[in-house]
Amino acid sequence: MSQHAPAVTPDLFWQTMSAFQQSAALKSAVELEIFTHIGAGKASATEIAEASGASERGVRILCDVLTIIGFLTKDSGNYQLTESTAAFLDKRSPMYVGSAVEFILSPAQRRGYDELTNAVRNGGSSVSGEASMDPESEMWVNFARNMAPLMFPGAQMLAEHIGFEADRQLKVLDIAAGHGIYGIMVAKKYPNAQIYGADWNKVLAVAKENAEKLGVADRYHTIPGNAFESDFGTGFDVILIPNFLHHFDTPTCESFLRKVNSALADGGKVLTVEFVPNEDRVSPPPSAMFSLVMLAATPGGDAYTFAELKQMFENAGFSQNEIVALQPMPQHLIISTR
Amino acid sequence: MSQHAPAVTPDLFWQTMSAFQQSAALKSAVELEIFTHIGAGKASATEIAEASGASERGVRILCDVLTIIGFLTKDSGNYQLTESTAAFLDKRSPMYVGSAVEFILSPAQRRGYDELTNAVRNGGSSVSGEASMDPESEMWVNFARNMAPLMFPGAQMLAEHIGFEADRQLKVLDIAAGHGIYGIMVAKKYPNAQIYGADWNKVLAVAKENAEKLGVADRYHTIPGNAFESDFGTGFDVILIPNFLHHFDTPTCESFLRKVNSALADGGKVLTVEFVPNEDRVSPPPSAMFSLVMLAATPGGDAYTFAELKQMFENAGFSQNEIVALQPMPQHLIISTR
Repeated sequence: MSQHAPAVTPDLFWQTMSAFQQSAALKSAVELEIFTHIGAGKASATEIAEASGASERGVRILCDVLTIIGFLTKDSGNYQLTESTAAFLDKRSPMYVGSAVEFILSPAQRRGYDELTNAVRNGGSSVSGEASMDPESEMWVNFARNMAPLMFPGAQMLAEHIGFEADRQLKVLDIAAGHGIYGIMVAKKYPNAQIYGADWNKVLAVAKENAEKLGVADRYHTIPGNAFESDFGTGFDVILIPNFLHHFDTPTCESFLRKVNSALADGGKVLTVEFVPNEDRVSPPPSAMFSLVMLAATPGGDAYTFAELKQMFENAGFSQNEIVALQPMPQHLIISTR
Repeated sequence: MSQHAPAVTPDLFWQTMSAFQQSAALKSAVELEIFTHIGAGKASATEIAEASGASERGVRILCDVLTIIGFLTKDSGNYQLTESTAAFLDKRSPMYVGSAVEFILSPAQRRGYDELTNAVRNGGSSVSGEASMDPESEMWVNFARNMAPLMFPGAQMLAEHIGFEADRQLKVLDIAAGHGIYGIMVAKKYPNAQIYGADWNKVLAVAKENAEKLGVADRYHTIPGNAFESDFGTGFDVILIPNFLHHFDTPTCESFLRKVNSALADGGKVLTVEFVPNEDRVSPPPSAMFSLVMLAATPGGDAYTFAELKQMFENAGFSQNEIVALQPMPQHLIISTR
């Protein structure tokens, strides 16, 4: 055995088996606003416990665990936020993203993992049909409300990549708009753009709230309903498909992209946001891991490679397809034209 | 900002929030015996799917995720076990520990994490009373059946540290014996030792099975019942307290150790196995993280520091207390004498 051979240990097994405990600790910390209290100057377990209305034993153990994971530092019994924790998990920060735990760790999302063995057996989740395709389901409202903050950096970058002149009149369709952030960022960048958000009615209420907050409500229009059945209309200069295709199998994506094509104006562009792994499907980790989310949540979705996406777009009549990283987000942007 | 300052990113947040997905993937892999099939030479997703009676899509996504986590390697679509995976997760290996997922990720264990925010608020779990102190509960039977393989290395090391002459007559009490492995390893090392396993009756059935399998059944005796109420008898040369004290608060531990003291023979030794963090309570990670398990599962247990354990033992009449690492296990052994 070479000097540098890794030791044969069950450590990775133990760590991975226990990893769910870290997710639970993080969720509790967000729910009790532990990071916000520490950011506001509460340092000891006693002080943090008092501020959060929780027990000292509970807070001490939780903060020790958050220190071990790397969200806090600890010195002589006093806890402090790391720079990243202060930026993203202190509620007073404009970049606060903590609410995402309420979607990612919601019972509806977790159920797919409780039944993961069956999903592997059967080739897909049986969970999806119930929640994700039901127009009255709260699932996508939860997504729209709690995941929006994580979307801002990617949405801003997407708007930078549209590449039309700044003052051009644009008719923009945002498919499965959700929180509406992608379309809204396009509206911010293009003052003469009219945005049409398509999604379930309940979800569009969240998009409209966000359009209001961000000052573009007068240019924000809605197309309620199932994206596969709605009449989008025609003549769109820009069509956004953010984080949508991965929920569906290849034939469904292709037929949907044909519908998208028929809604696009001459010279128009389709901008698709996706988790795109490399051809090996195991790198880079954040994109490649996303296939598991789709196995747990959908009957036939996937994290598609660029070759696969390109083929779908070509089959739907888009001959030019370009891929751009949306760093620091794990997603990529695919820009497609006829 | 210095050149080496870590980037301010939500990456750790995202990773930790999604960590539960990795636990679920591992559990499914164990349940479908994916590692065993790969160990037996099935290499492609198609072959593994066929051998495990699962779908190709499900197996491909699962194996990609197991590759990303580090359990497998992947080359041209063919998966292989790492050396550690072959040793610990292929069922044909004598060191197989995969069954531990059935305890650590059982609904009973996970419920404590579903209610973790309440446990932090209230200072302890409300889950414990129901399952862990009920003599008819299947929870400790599950523990005894599925966690035994993980205990062998530590139990063997414990036996090495007893330090009596090899042929001495020993009367050994194994408290909350569970799978019985600690006492059984002492019986293997000391051919003239008589072992008395104390635990719930249902759990002792597993210990007796293991004593039978390992050839020491004729020297294995049982003391059924609640360890706080049972009459242990007296005159024990060795008393084992493996992974027991952490479930209880300090006053409960101290009064229990007084009971242990009264069962010990002159010149006897108490050997306690515990997760013992350093005084900072955040290192080393595997021991320090264990406090969370106790927060989620018990009303007042903890991963106690050596200073705390020493104080408990001193208060219970043990003046000599020595601590020994049980590496490569994360636990420590505390050897106490009057």
